[in-house]
Amino acid sequence: MKKIMKHGGDLLTYKDKFHGELIDYSSNINPLGTPPNLEAKIMENFSTVTSYPDIKYRELKKSVGKYLGCEISNVVVGNGAMEIIDLFNLISKRVLTLSPAFSEYSFRAKIHNKEYLELKYKEDFTIDMEELEANIRKDDLIILGNPNNPTGMRIPKDELIGIYELVKMREAYLVLDEAFFEFVPEDYDSIEIFREYGYENIGIIRAATKFFGMPGIRLGYGCVSKEMVEILDEKAVTWSVNCFADIAGRYIFDEKEYIEKSKAYIACEREFMLKQLKDIDGLYIYNTLTNYILIKLKNRDEEEVFEEFLKYGFVIRKCSSFKVLGDNHIRIAIKDRENNMKILDAFKQIKF
Amino acid sequence: MKKIMKHGGDLLTYKDKFHGELIDYSSNINPLGTPPNLEAKIMENFSTVTSYPDIKYRELKKSVGKYLGCEISNVVVGNGAMEIIDLFNLISKRVLTLSPAFSEYSFRAKIHNKEYLELKYKEDFTIDMEELEANIRKDDLIILGNPNNPTGMRIPKDELIGIYELVKMREAYLVLDEAFFEFVPEDYDSIEIFREYGYENIGIIRAATKFFGMPGIRLGYGCVSKEMVEILDEKAVTWSVNCFADIAGRYIFDEKEYIEKSKAYIACEREFMLKQLKDIDGLYIYNTLTNYILIKLKNRDEEEVFEEFLKYGFVIRKCSSFKVLGDNHIRIAIKDRENNMKILDAFKQIKF
Repeated sequence: MKKIMKHGGDLLTYKDKFHGELIDYSSNINPLGTPPNLEAKIMENFSTVTSYPDIKYRELKKSVGKYLGCEISNVVVGNGAMEIIDLFNLISKRVLTLSPAFSEYSFRAKIHNKEYLELKYKEDFTIDMEELEANIRKDDLIILGNPNNPTGMRIPKDELIGIYELVKMREAYLVLDEAFFEFVPEDYDSIEIFREYGYENIGIIRAATKFFGMPGIRLGYGCVSKEMVEILDEKAVTWSVNCFADIAGRYIFDEKEYIEKSKAYIACEREFMLKQLKDIDGLYIYNTLTNYILIKLKNRDEEEVFEEFLKYGFVIRKCSSFKVLGDNHIRIAIKDRENNMKILDAFKQIKF
Repeated sequence: MKKIMKHGGDLLTYKDKFHGELIDYSSNINPLGTPPNLEAKIMENFSTVTSYPDIKYRELKKSVGKYLGCEISNVVVGNGAMEIIDLFNLISKRVLTLSPAFSEYSFRAKIHNKEYLELKYKEDFTIDMEELEANIRKDDLIILGNPNNPTGMRIPKDELIGIYELVKMREAYLVLDEAFFEFVPEDYDSIEIFREYGYENIGIIRAATKFFGMPGIRLGYGCVSKEMVEILDEKAVTWSVNCFADIAGRYIFDEKEYIEKSKAYIACEREFMLKQLKDIDGLYIYNTLTNYILIKLKNRDEEEVFEEFLKYGFVIRKCSSFKVLGDNHIRIAIKDRENNMKILDAFKQIKF
């Protein structure tokens, strides 16, 4: 039976299919690993495990606020970005998404028995503003990846402001999932843009997961209006952020050197990978601003190609769970040069 | 303004009221701390932080199943017991609780816009079976602490089976919050009792939080029917259990010596504390099977007494958030002998 792959990173499921250690190209994590002193910081503060985390996450919010450049009273934190995004379902009537997008957006709406509407991006993965305008209703929750997963594209600044004005006028709410924000070459910062609006009707959600290389620890955070902080804090399950995520979040944002190095490293590897991949026949390589690359298979099926990569020891991401993409797209991470060379070798061996 | 105290463990809020380190008697954590090798185990496996936790928590569930004495396919895990209990709201029509009880039960129902009905325990904190029987409806979710917080009492075995039969007949669902299970002197084990029923219409939820002394790590688990495992696993936010909770849960249950020592220690301190407290005028000391003691203030208000304990450096638990208890009850933890002696000294100084 063909299995839909809803998430990356699940190497355990495939471990018996390859003799040796599988290399994960299905989840998109900073290849430089965690900030250098993370382990030491957690060890230093290990005894916090014997107490409940601060019920209000005061120190954590202070650190996040400083990093994001917003007031502490605008900060929400969560057990991964998904917990925060999930909470918005509790205050919306209907969820509106554009496909292809992270499948959890509409799935969580379903879990909460909310109505949801999945519109489509245009063929070039830009937003059909007319269609969006025709569909936004009062109390809608519009969730947009920015940059979007799996396309790797970001909403242009003017368009984003246009969408926001529309959302506000209609009394709807816009959630930007910016989990991959730091990987994007410097451009605009949504948190700066919407500061003057007091983040009314908009939530900008980010995460330590990907850029800070720690998906295991579960730390999401975001910037919303002060009123929305109170609503979300009340709705979240108490102590949902664990003590180690709390410690990590008080420290990682000060690691300026690691942050700059990671940005530069990914920028370089992204260019390298895109250039190399574009030379391979049978593939259409989408541009990307992030640390993953969406690839269209001109002649082949995701399942076959997935199995071939497995034989070479790589787990890649099949993309049919992103719905409109059908079964002829794959997504791969951008990792360190050594592994990138290895997977490029596999790309050159496989007949597309 | 008088502030309702919804949860214990929030020392930060009171830190400016006392010169010195506050001692927490408001949350009920094993005074022996975590199992001895927890820190080493987490360090050994620190690199798991750079990957997503196993999306299916296969090893963790295996360990929990072995400890609980149930099949792996009956095991659910969560970001603390509360995440699991919260998920049941998504599949119920109405939540039914008995007061006094942990305030989150009805609060989470409210968050999910569910109807809820709060009945009362009898004056001696036993269950009014007739009233319960008169009120259970199809698709109700009945949540009972067993032992109950803050009363420290457990449902007698025969009564529990009676309640279960009733719940099943009415096509409702019973959740037993057994977060304090291990502190209770050996008696019946709900997981054994309901094995023959395949855990249909019943969920037994426990946690590493209290007994294993690690509220910071957030690890809850439980035993439910195989069908319910699938439902809850689908409804939970993906990767809600962090990698360190995952590691801890694969190791702590093998620490037999720590487990036995903790049980014996608490049993001894419980007896000591109860005996000492019963000699103090102005207090009514409820019996307890757990590691906390509910106390009725015959002549005084929780707020005044709370402030007096603060002056001695202790944060105790005010109980008015448990609703029916009014403002003349406090709850204190049972900790190590040294601290217990200290708080008993304070008890002897304060005029009740």
